[in-house]
Amino acid sequence: MKVDGKDMRPIWFNPDSKIVQVIDQRFLPHRLIVEDLLTMDRTIYAIKEMFVRGAPLIGATGAFGVYISLVQKNNKGADNAYLISECNRLKDARPTAMNLFWGVDRVLKIALKYDTYEARVKAALDEALAVTEEEAVNCKKIGEYGMPIIEEISKKKNGAPVNILTHCNAGWLACVEYGTATAPVYTAFDNGIDVHVWVDETRPLNQGSRLTAWELGKHGVRHTVITDNAGGHIMQHGMVDLVIVGTDRTTRAGDVANKIGTYLKALAARDNNIPFYVALPSSTFDWDITDGIADIPIEERDPDEIRYVQGLCNGKIKKVLVPPETSFAVNHAFDVTPARLVTGFITERGICKAGEKGIMALFPDKKK
Amino acid sequence: MKVDGKDMRPIWFNPDSKIVQVIDQRFLPHRLIVEDLLTMDRTIYAIKEMFVRGAPLIGATGAFGVYISLVQKNNKGADNAYLISECNRLKDARPTAMNLFWGVDRVLKIALKYDTYEARVKAALDEALAVTEEEAVNCKKIGEYGMPIIEEISKKKNGAPVNILTHCNAGWLACVEYGTATAPVYTAFDNGIDVHVWVDETRPLNQGSRLTAWELGKHGVRHTVITDNAGGHIMQHGMVDLVIVGTDRTTRAGDVANKIGTYLKALAARDNNIPFYVALPSSTFDWDITDGIADIPIEERDPDEIRYVQGLCNGKIKKVLVPPETSFAVNHAFDVTPARLVTGFITERGICKAGEKGIMALFPDKKK
Repeated sequence: MKVDGKDMRPIWFNPDSKIVQVIDQRFLPHRLIVEDLLTMDRTIYAIKEMFVRGAPLIGATGAFGVYISLVQKNNKGADNAYLISECNRLKDARPTAMNLFWGVDRVLKIALKYDTYEARVKAALDEALAVTEEEAVNCKKIGEYGMPIIEEISKKKNGAPVNILTHCNAGWLACVEYGTATAPVYTAFDNGIDVHVWVDETRPLNQGSRLTAWELGKHGVRHTVITDNAGGHIMQHGMVDLVIVGTDRTTRAGDVANKIGTYLKALAARDNNIPFYVALPSSTFDWDITDGIADIPIEERDPDEIRYVQGLCNGKIKKVLVPPETSFAVNHAFDVTPARLVTGFITERGICKAGEKGIMALFPDKKK
Repeated sequence: MKVDGKDMRPIWFNPDSKIVQVIDQRFLPHRLIVEDLLTMDRTIYAIKEMFVRGAPLIGATGAFGVYISLVQKNNKGADNAYLISECNRLKDARPTAMNLFWGVDRVLKIALKYDTYEARVKAALDEALAVTEEEAVNCKKIGEYGMPIIEEISKKKNGAPVNILTHCNAGWLACVEYGTATAPVYTAFDNGIDVHVWVDETRPLNQGSRLTAWELGKHGVRHTVITDNAGGHIMQHGMVDLVIVGTDRTTRAGDVANKIGTYLKALAARDNNIPFYVALPSSTFDWDITDGIADIPIEERDPDEIRYVQGLCNGKIKKVLVPPETSFAVNHAFDVTPARLVTGFITERGICKAGEKGIMALFPDKKK
């Protein structure tokens, strides 16, 4: 997507230097910093510390990680045992997003088919690039399938702005292009439909106010930042027409693990009869599990992500401590929204109802 | 309540200087600053800018405001017209909390009964002191009526910690003593019941992580700060036994205006069969209205309260900008939780079910 007129993705392979590069998203919206991923340690650090984040982008980074493990400094041979062990380390970087395991395993499987080092490097890079392009194409399709939902509301409102609430950042920064939750929004916007996005700030790491607000603003989409607390109130007062969020892992029955707080928005949408859609590439499905609340591991992150808030102060990026120094905090990063609260899934294959029956109708190849 | 072993209230009359003093709560938990309220302008500023906040404390400050309007510098006579006009200015300081109008009107009515300046000053001060003491006594009673709810859960859990979630600060800092939502917690704690409080940070002004965490910590009550987003997840996983919140205005039918985000917690409590109580002195009821969503005005505050977050940085209190400089924000300060989601009210007269029938049984004097 465009940033100040220039095409940009959150991850790319630099063909001249042969280096994988990413935007270090920790410093957005105030600094746009590019980072080289030269080693597996740095790649894992970038995933853990959220230079890169968002399920599809973590998947793409995992895919490139197999290539990085092969070409990194101090690579002592890259035999099968080494490669599998490095990939296991990579898959452990974050526990919730399905795409990480999927991206790593897909490239690893291909790489292991080749015997020579050179063939492995080439195969891993080609497959990682293929994963990345497929994610971009999938997000484009999600946009095309999702746009009619917005278009229909726009028609019902006689062209008045369609107000869409989103939580966290499931935009192009979380993917490769277009985003998942934002793909229908960008597609509608690019087709001249009047849209306005309510951006949940998304505590603790403020991916909404930092990232979603930034990328919508750079694309020219009208948006308003609100606290995570505000969604219920604006839904009660008719100020939200539609909710679209992303997901980090989705069960075959349609339970959705997404950024903590998503479940609360789903409850409010249901209480106010507002459609609540989840947009996802099918790589986000975990076909092996059904009950999301019981079976999806929820990452617990550093409590200091809650205690300290980062932002701009006199032109410098600083962190301020909010609660008393002596108060504990806990930081669950995701919650699970039961399928019963989800209106539908917007995928690269089309739209389906939330629930095993609807999902299996769209993905018959995944029937057990 | 105690602060580092010293008795403290958030508002008091200094008998030596004859000055009303308050804690400027904007700088807690990092600075404990005391402010003199010498003029009506300063009193209104202190309410608007939230040196003082919380429905009962706003009520007490309003009550003292009538006295301040009489004794302030440049007081040009204090005839009835002057006094009424000053009190109207004061009542306009914040629109949502019922207690402000109630506190001001109660003292104004008494003051107007007297003809001489001296008699008015004395009557206004005496009544403001009476309001303050009554609020303290009411909160004490709320604690006594509420404690058995916690005690019963404690017994069912064989003495394991009772996990209570609260939103915003409805503690002694919001009242005069004990608090409303916290009164049952303090009373249970003082009676040896093992309690643990989940403290919602309460964006945008972080009254939970700044104030509730501070006062619970100073009293020795175990607590954990969580994001506003986290409540649903911890309820799903059995980590919350009870929710208690305060209220800024409650209709005769039991709809509850409280800090933005309360409604989302009520929805999650209902979805997980967790009791959701609202603690309030009856001065918080607005007996004239029934439908809270339609009839309670919701204050919209400065968007910069969302855009900038205040905290401690290298020993100094600083504000950092989180979203892009160019992104808009809106800041609705309250939302309304419909009575259907409230398990019961804990008041100074006892506990009643949410709904006109239950409320009227406890307050038969308010029947129309």
